[in-house]
Amino acid sequence: MKEIKVGLCGLGTVGTGVVNLLKNHKEEIKHKLGCEIVIKKVLVNNLHKQRDIAIDREWLTNNPDELVNNPDIDVIVEVMGGIEDTNLLLEQAVKNKKHIVTANKDLMAVHGQRLLRLAKENHCDIFYDASVAGGIPILRSLSDGLASDRIQKIMGIVNGTTNYILTKMTDEKLPFEPVLKEAQELGFAEADPTSDVEGLDAARKMTLLANLAFKMEIGLDDVEVSGISEISQEDITFANSLGYTIKLIGIASINRGKVEVSVEPTLLPHDHPLAQVKNEYNAVYVYGEAVGETMFYGPGAGSMPTATAVVSDLMEVIKNIRLGISGNSYISPQYETQLKQNTEKYTKYFIRMAVDDEAGTFQKITNVFSDQQVSFAKILQLPSNEKETAEIVMVTHQISKQQLLSSIENLYGLSVVNKIISYYRVDGEE
Amino acid sequence: MKEIKVGLCGLGTVGTGVVNLLKNHKEEIKHKLGCEIVIKKVLVNNLHKQRDIAIDREWLTNNPDELVNNPDIDVIVEVMGGIEDTNLLLEQAVKNKKHIVTANKDLMAVHGQRLLRLAKENHCDIFYDASVAGGIPILRSLSDGLASDRIQKIMGIVNGTTNYILTKMTDEKLPFEPVLKEAQELGFAEADPTSDVEGLDAARKMTLLANLAFKMEIGLDDVEVSGISEISQEDITFANSLGYTIKLIGIASINRGKVEVSVEPTLLPHDHPLAQVKNEYNAVYVYGEAVGETMFYGPGAGSMPTATAVVSDLMEVIKNIRLGISGNSYISPQYETQLKQNTEKYTKYFIRMAVDDEAGTFQKITNVFSDQQVSFAKILQLPSNEKETAEIVMVTHQISKQQLLSSIENLYGLSVVNKIISYYRVDGEE
Repeated sequence: MKEIKVGLCGLGTVGTGVVNLLKNHKEEIKHKLGCEIVIKKVLVNNLHKQRDIAIDREWLTNNPDELVNNPDIDVIVEVMGGIEDTNLLLEQAVKNKKHIVTANKDLMAVHGQRLLRLAKENHCDIFYDASVAGGIPILRSLSDGLASDRIQKIMGIVNGTTNYILTKMTDEKLPFEPVLKEAQELGFAEADPTSDVEGLDAARKMTLLANLAFKMEIGLDDVEVSGISEISQEDITFANSLGYTIKLIGIASINRGKVEVSVEPTLLPHDHPLAQVKNEYNAVYVYGEAVGETMFYGPGAGSMPTATAVVSDLMEVIKNIRLGISGNSYISPQYETQLKQNTEKYTKYFIRMAVDDEAGTFQKITNVFSDQQVSFAKILQLPSNEKETAEIVMVTHQISKQQLLSSIENLYGLSVVNKIISYYRVDGEE
Repeated sequence: MKEIKVGLCGLGTVGTGVVNLLKNHKEEIKHKLGCEIVIKKVLVNNLHKQRDIAIDREWLTNNPDELVNNPDIDVIVEVMGGIEDTNLLLEQAVKNKKHIVTANKDLMAVHGQRLLRLAKENHCDIFYDASVAGGIPILRSLSDGLASDRIQKIMGIVNGTTNYILTKMTDEKLPFEPVLKEAQELGFAEADPTSDVEGLDAARKMTLLANLAFKMEIGLDDVEVSGISEISQEDITFANSLGYTIKLIGIASINRGKVEVSVEPTLLPHDHPLAQVKNEYNAVYVYGEAVGETMFYGPGAGSMPTATAVVSDLMEVIKNIRLGISGNSYISPQYETQLKQNTEKYTKYFIRMAVDDEAGTFQKITNVFSDQQVSFAKILQLPSNEKETAEIVMVTHQISKQQLLSSIENLYGLSVVNKIISYYRVDGEE
């Protein structure tokens, strides 16, 4: 076999990166694989669009059949995005015994498990490392490098847009709205930023990480998600004065076979490795029973970083083709998915509230918490901007989510409590 | 094939970890591999020593032949250390078609390339990810996850002992000697700390990383090494006041096919990801042409972290046995080793000197540097503790090592320069 023929779906940012990488690193790739990679067809929407890349017009097609039903093509590289239509296309490709490399987290979070099984039945590989944390080889590290360990917790900064926004809000003491606007102008945020800002993008990636780490089938609906649009400059300042940095953290953890997956603003001690991940960078912190703390850091998006992950996956597919071992990498889930209830989810919380500044207020509040067996590690009381009110900021010891929610409900029953302004998870410290 | 039989050489810290990990994670490992791993023999020095581990006495032997010449054994796991004798043992094992997993950086840095070739000839695998940065799957990430990229630079904190010592010296403002003593008492430094403290241990690991990243055969003799025993509290304080943290950094870089590998105390900007790696932790920062900046962080040593790497490698060996593709992972060097000369090694330098505190001194010094076309980014002049002398601390712009060495030689020709107290590489900033 002298060459492997690839059908590339999509010629946007990542697709262009893939074409460039295959061209620029041609010799090294050939040395490693012992064969050449040749792009046969490229699926695009617009055949006549002007493109910033030297590409043979003959390659271009807007007909998916010329890729997925083309007997000449060995591997489909899918970097065009979309969920349902793209899924049908990839299913068809797999049924035609074509291997798949995809960077499509949206699709993999929804159809991944079924597609992986279908591929295995057809002796095909599907690799999707580019779909989580761009250039960071995190899926491989979980499935190979840490294969012998039992992963207990993953904390990920897996969305570059929100990390960029929070970094700017923290470093430049600016509110959310203007920072989002700047991020949009710089291309770090989409025109419609909802999926990033409200945590959905991160949730999709956490699903993929959790399934691989815990060997289950956790669905997107199993992930509790909250985004960053409600974080205020005051939250950041209070967190900072208590020794914490606010990050949008995806958490996946397991205890006694029960899992919890969430994406939410989280306070981390300033010296936690994740607290120091700035701007649009991504990082995935993995805690394994045997290995302890590890972290994988790098660019979470971008043309060439993502292309690196795509082409590295493509090289793995080709190695497997040449060795005749395709379709062996997928391991079916070992455990039934069991989700933790609120009474089983334990963490610390940062709680910030506006209260009447009068004698007895503090005692009433602490009574509510005592009733729920909630105790505190840190308490800060400050006069607020409004007359005759004060702000109280507290950091609890480890409590269950149930204890938190009951306490908050009961706090609202107190006339001295005007508002629970915000509450956030606190993680990453003993 | 129902089980894979392993011969374990060494039952010290890591060997004990391997036995425990195989036992504790037995079910998961079996699920992933579809077969069991069985330890058949364990090579030890002392058959009768009391051990903190439940192990079948029948397994123990002090005769290597019972492992390497035992037709019953499929894989040798070598975690006993040593170079020449161990090399002979592993050679014999490979000739007997046994696969190898080793955590032995000393051996791999010296005999690695020959052993890898011998294994390939015998259709055997050798994996050694545990030998660099303990629990961090860095060798795999270079060879698989970043396979498609062209690695341009690696900077590694790959020795936990020195990082622990430098962290304590920095955070607690203590000198080298008492911190070393404390590290020895806590078990973070050996009774004879030379190999760690003087950088040799890190140099071995950098050789392995550089060979894999640059596809060459760089020998240990090609690495320039200096350790941390000469770093003073004043160096740390001056570096800090200029915005830098001192770390013992292994650097491997390539430009136009020429490489430079060194281990030396290096100043990094405080916000560089490596500057924030504390205590005994390791981290490897990888700069790839396409992917950009990535970093891999985790425990560099210890029983269970290293065992995780060993057993993950063992699982890879077994997967290959079961798929019938052993001996395919080694890729022979693609390029001839070409080392950079001093005129081709470019970086910034921190230079600290004691000078006479008299008119014209500063001009004489800057003249010396101007003659060598050396210019500065930062300059600090301070009165020294000794009368009529001052200290000057400078950080240069990018210069060649040749420019540095010539400047220093010429500075010693000036009567106003009493001593070049220290000079260090400055890296990690634009």
